[in-house]
Parts: sequence; C-alpha cells; structure tokens
Amino acid sequence: MEAYLDNSATTQCSQEAADLMMRLLRVDYGNPSSLHNCGMEAENYVKEARKRIAQTLKVNEKEIYFTSGGSESNNLAIVGSALANKRSGMHVITTAIEHPSVANPFAYLEEQGFAVTYLPVDAYGCISLQDLKDAMCSDTILVSIMHVNNEIGAVQPVEEAARLIKQTNPNCLFHVDAIQSYGKFRIYPKRMGIDLLSVSGHKIHGPKGSGFLFVRDKVKVHPLILGGGQERGLRSGTENVPAIAGLGQAAMEIYQNFDAKIMQMYRLRDYFIAEVEKIDGVSVNGHKDHSNAPHIVSVSVSGVRSEVLLHALEDREIYVSAGSACSSNKPAVSRTLQSIGLKRELLESTVRFSFSVHTTKEEIDYALEAMAELVPMLAKYRRS
Amino acid sequence: MEAYLDNSATTQCSQEAADLMMRLLRVDYGNPSSLHNCGMEAENYVKEARKRIAQTLKVNEKEIYFTSGGSESNNLAIVGSALANKRSGMHVITTAIEHPSVANPFAYLEEQGFAVTYLPVDAYGCISLQDLKDAMCSDTILVSIMHVNNEIGAVQPVEEAARLIKQTNPNCLFHVDAIQSYGKFRIYPKRMGIDLLSVSGHKIHGPKGSGFLFVRDKVKVHPLILGGGQERGLRSGTENVPAIAGLGQAAMEIYQNFDAKIMQMYRLRDYFIAEVEKIDGVSVNGHKDHSNAPHIVSVSVSGVRSEVLLHALEDREIYVSAGSACSSNKPAVSRTLQSIGLKRELLESTVRFSFSVHTTKEEIDYALEAMAELVPMLAKYRRS
Repeated sequence: MEAYLDNSATTQCSQEAADLMMRLLRVDYGNPSSLHNCGMEAENYVKEARKRIAQTLKVNEKEIYFTSGGSESNNLAIVGSALANKRSGMHVITTAIEHPSVANPFAYLEEQGFAVTYLPVDAYGCISLQDLKDAMCSDTILVSIMHVNNEIGAVQPVEEAARLIKQTNPNCLFHVDAIQSYGKFRIYPKRMGIDLLSVSGHKIHGPKGSGFLFVRDKVKVHPLILGGGQERGLRSGTENVPAIAGLGQAAMEIYQNFDAKIMQMYRLRDYFIAEVEKIDGVSVNGHKDHSNAPHIVSVSVSGVRSEVLLHALEDREIYVSAGSACSSNKPAVSRTLQSIGLKRELLESTVRFSFSVHTTKEEIDYALEAMAELVPMLAKYRRS
Repeated sequence: MEAYLDNSATTQCSQEAADLMMRLLRVDYGNPSSLHNCGMEAENYVKEARKRIAQTLKVNEKEIYFTSGGSESNNLAIVGSALANKRSGMHVITTAIEHPSVANPFAYLEEQGFAVTYLPVDAYGCISLQDLKDAMCSDTILVSIMHVNNEIGAVQPVEEAARLIKQTNPNCLFHVDAIQSYGKFRIYPKRMGIDLLSVSGHKIHGPKGSGFLFVRDKVKVHPLILGGGQERGLRSGTENVPAIAGLGQAAMEIYQNFDAKIMQMYRLRDYFIAEVEKIDGVSVNGHKDHSNAPHIVSVSVSGVRSEVLLHALEDREIYVSAGSACSSNKPAVSRTLQSIGLKRELLESTVRFSFSVHTTKEEIDYALEAMAELVPMLAKYRRS
C-alpha cells in the first residue's frame, strides 16, 4: 500500500485537467496573440479558465491575472503593489510565519527602504488583531497575511483583519497568500475586503507552473515581467494555455461538492489526531479542532529526528514532509515552529502530514499503523 | 488541407514531450523539494532535462536555470544583470529591433537611470559591428543582441559582436535572446563569448510555460522571483517538472539529425521565396539567401492589408502572422519593419510565414497556390 500524505507540497494533477492539457499541447496549440483561428481558439480556453476561476471567488473575470505559480503571484502582489504605491507611504506589515515567497519579497522591500512590521503569532500560529491594529499607521500601504499556514495549518482571521485595515486606513492594500487555503475554504475577496489574493495550481490538483493573482479593480500593481503586454500588461509572456486551462479545470473541480469534501477531510483529520496522539511521545501542533485547516497535521515526535521518521515512513511508501518542503532541499529550522514557541527539542522532530480530497480512511489507517510501530522503535534507537 | 505556417508564434508540442508531461502530471507528480522518493524522482527528471539542454549548448549543467519562458528569461537576464552590476557602470546597449520582452526591460532600465544605446540596423535587419564598437565605452556593463529577429529572420553577427565586446571591455556582459534561433542554429555560448542566453520551449516543440536562461559561471544576476531558493536562488517557485522535462525532451529532439532538418528548411524557404516573388506586387524582406534564418519569410504585398490577407489565408486553413504575434493582440506598426526602412505603404501590408522542422513541401505548395489566387484578387478589390 502507498499513502501520499504530502499534498501541501504538491498534488496529483486531475485526470480531466491533464487530458485538457494534452489536447492543448498537441491539437489546439495556437498562440492566443495570433489573429487567426488557432489563436482565437487558444484565447477561448484562456477566457473559459478565467471565467471558471472568477466564479469560484465571485469576482470579475478581469480581476484574475494568470502567473507561473504561487511564488510569482506572491512576488508580483507584494513587490508590485508596494512599488506602485510607495508615494503614499513606506510602511508595510506581514507576519512572522509567512512562506519564503512572501517573507523574502518583504526582506527585499526592507532593502529598498521600506519599514516592515512582522506580526508575532500565538502558540497556535494565529496573529492577534490587536497587534495588527497597533502596527497600522498612516504610512502603512500594504498588509500581507497568509490565510492558512503551510506547516501547521493555522487559519488567520483574514476577514476581521481586512475590516480592521480598511477602518484604520481605507487606502492600505490587503494581500492574502491563499496558496494553502484556496480549495479548502470558500474565499470571496470582494466581500471580505481583500485586494490581492495569490493562488497556486499544483496545490489543488492543477498543473505545476500555474497560478493566478486576483487584483481588485483599480488596485495599482507594477508588473514584474515586461514584454508583449499579455494579461493586460501585468504579466507579459505567451500565455501558458495548457497550464491555464488545467488550472481552470482544477479550480472548478475542487469547488464541486465542496462541503462534503471538506467535512470528510476534517473527519479524517479528527480521527488521525485522536489516534496519533495515543502514541507515546507524539503531540500535534496548532489547533486540533475545526478552527484549523482541514488538510494539515503537524506532528512532533519526542526523541525522533524529522528526517529519520520521514525516511522510515518512506520505506513503507508513506510520504510526508519535514519542514515546509517548499524551500529547495534546505531543511532549515522552521520559523513557523519557532514562532509558536515549540520546545527546542521538538523543532527538528516534527513532520507534516497533509491530505487531499482524495485521501482515504485506508491510507490514514495505514499511516497510523506505521507510526504506532515506528515511533517506539525509533525513539528507543535514538536513546540507546 | 491545412498549413500551419506560424511556427515563430508557437509550435505543436512533440508527442514524446507531451507524453512525458502527462506522466509527470499523473504518475511521478512529486515536488523536487520533498525529501522522500517522490521528490527525488521528480528532481531526477529536472536533472535529466538540465543535462540534455547543457549538452546541446556544450555548457555546464549548473549554468542552466529554468524559467517560465522566454519573456521571463529575457527580463531576468537584462534587469537582473544590469541591477547586479550597476556599480561598474550605468550604460547598456541593445538594438532597435528587439522583441518587446527585451525592449521593455531596457525602457525600464532607462527609467532607473541607465543610459541606453539602441543600435540601428541596415535594410536587411542587421546591425553594424562598427556601430557597436563606437557605442561601447568604459561604462558599458551590458550588451543585448537578439540572435534571430522574430519578424524577418535576420541573423545578427553575435560571435563577432562578442569578440568585439570582450576586446573593448572584458567585464561587459553579453546577453543573446536566442528564442528564435535555438534549435535552428548550433549555439555554443562559451566558445562564442556569450554570458547570458535566453531560450523558450514552445518555439521548439516544447511546452508553453517553459524556458531557460544560460548564465555563464561567475556572472552575477539578481533574481526576479524570490522565495524558496529553487534554481540555486536565481528563480524561486516549485519547479514546473512536467514543463521542464518536456523542454529537455524537445531540446534533445530538435538537435537530432540537425543538419538535414535545417537544410530541408532552407530548401523550402528558397523554393517559397522564388515562387512567391513571381506573384505581382509581392516582395520578400531581409536577406533571401542562407545568411537569413531558415524558418522565417517576411512577405510584403503591395496594396493588400496584412489582416485582410491573413484572414483570406485563414479561410483556407493557412495560418500566418501579421506583425510578430508575440505582442498581445496589439497590431502596432512593426518597429523591425520600420527600422529596415520598409516603404511606408508596405508597413501594414506584410505577413510572416514561419516554418518548423515538420513543415512539408505540400504545405508550401498549398500556401503558394493560395497566395497566387488571393493576392491578385485582394489587390484588385483594394484598388476598386
């Protein structure tokens, strides 16, 4: 048996999305910029994808800009909006537990002379609205808060944060990294007061190399990639039609029968947490109830190094992650785990199990069985 | 019958490349940053692609950086190298006929305080080495010259330019946009003195959304997209494994049986030019001999507007381009055609036929037949 429980790193592409891509690679392979039929056909696939995605967010199609993925979306949103609006102020706010594709653009803004406030999080990985309120000033032009943390699944109060931001300074932009939350939560940026929202395709059974940035109408953003003026000038380069169409298909699919799928993921998560914590030395990080995301379980195992456990599970074809697995092979100490105040000895003894809508009870049972066998063995080995 | 003669806009993805992508979307779908088997497998596909590409250029694998395509490669090369080296000087040089993904980054550098020299071209679209020599000064840190022009197929003397640049100022970087030349010419950047080389996948029967930048060892370039540190920190974001593998496959294929394929394209081009010029009012732009690229024929038709001819050909399922078709649906007057001094009345009466390695004599004959029938009819209609 095999259990791929690393779905927050990447997911299997849906069959329908892959089939659509195959068609666009081999049959309808035109360039949307071409004025003839082949180009028009290709453009129609892009339009259809934009429409499908806009529907899931209840936004206008013109507010969806396709990118090469989540990291590009985050960079474009943060650097692009800060540089486009810096005349209004040079203060920006984010959190201490963002993904590197948010944290590093903020470090870049700091080099460019911006002042950056990093909001701390509590023991469950959640920011405090009071901290946000205290940090806001008349110079603040951008706040960026991730919706769901990629390592422990903490959910930030983005709707309340938006209200607070707009009350304090209506011109301050609010960016949400929704890479781990799109497809797991219903997100309506306009109703929620979100100006910029980043999404990645390969986390929702779409293709790698696909993603989009929602940019609310009238929000000014500087492009990162200049050229032929595609995506209304915000993102040049021949549209990646197969990936865009695949992303549109995946976005549509992930929100079909949505409530039942999410309920099922929470059921598996509840069960997994209850069972895994019965194992001696095992603890789960973050909220264990449904205030956490449904697909991520961060598990610390006293006395067992993350990589040792990861490889022991791998031997049984159970695939999990040590750290966030979004940083290229560099198992640095997790900033998220440090920020929640995890005990020092557990920092490098934590693995992440992440589910998808296709994860089954059988896979969970298989993983639990392996954990129950491996953890005592590895902990013993470690002590000896 | 159908004749897709718009291969400089985009090409059909090769069957083998598409099959490989399908496998990586559905079966080996891991994230190369994951430490388990699925991640290792994915990483091996990336390594294999890097190796295949490095072999075609006779460079080190570590000098190949994957991007989301040609536009990103050009932006990264130009903006990234200029900003990383601006302490050595603020003068940069390019040509008057570059693709927008080169021209617009240079306009951006101008806004940032750089002085930009735009080299003119002769009636065939070629720069003069003397002009380049005259433009070079001790402050020049970057020269960017496209190898093959996308509208008329003019080939620039990049090897001689490199020699001249390095003789004048060994620290000046030389970037070549090889998006229309890779797969049509043998390019050995190190032997030729090229520091940065941009390539796009979908012009060589690879997937859209794929491309790479060759960066010679020790050349400093600032990243455009920050985050998890993939591609040795130069390009963050989960590797687009399917597209990278597809690109590697396409790169390998395009250089197989290379000389015979190029000879065949020149044979078709020679034949097409000889026959199409027999039609009254038709003239071919640029060099007609083999000093031009093998796959592009720019055809001006006196008294017939480009779009009228394009759509008349389209009715017969012959697909060509008006202008460069790389700029998003904006049929602006071509800077390349203006720069070669094309007569005013022909500027908007020019279409581009572009071949691929799969283009057949039958397709060419079919296109010639259509041109022989349509041109007199449309020219007459226009005059009446």
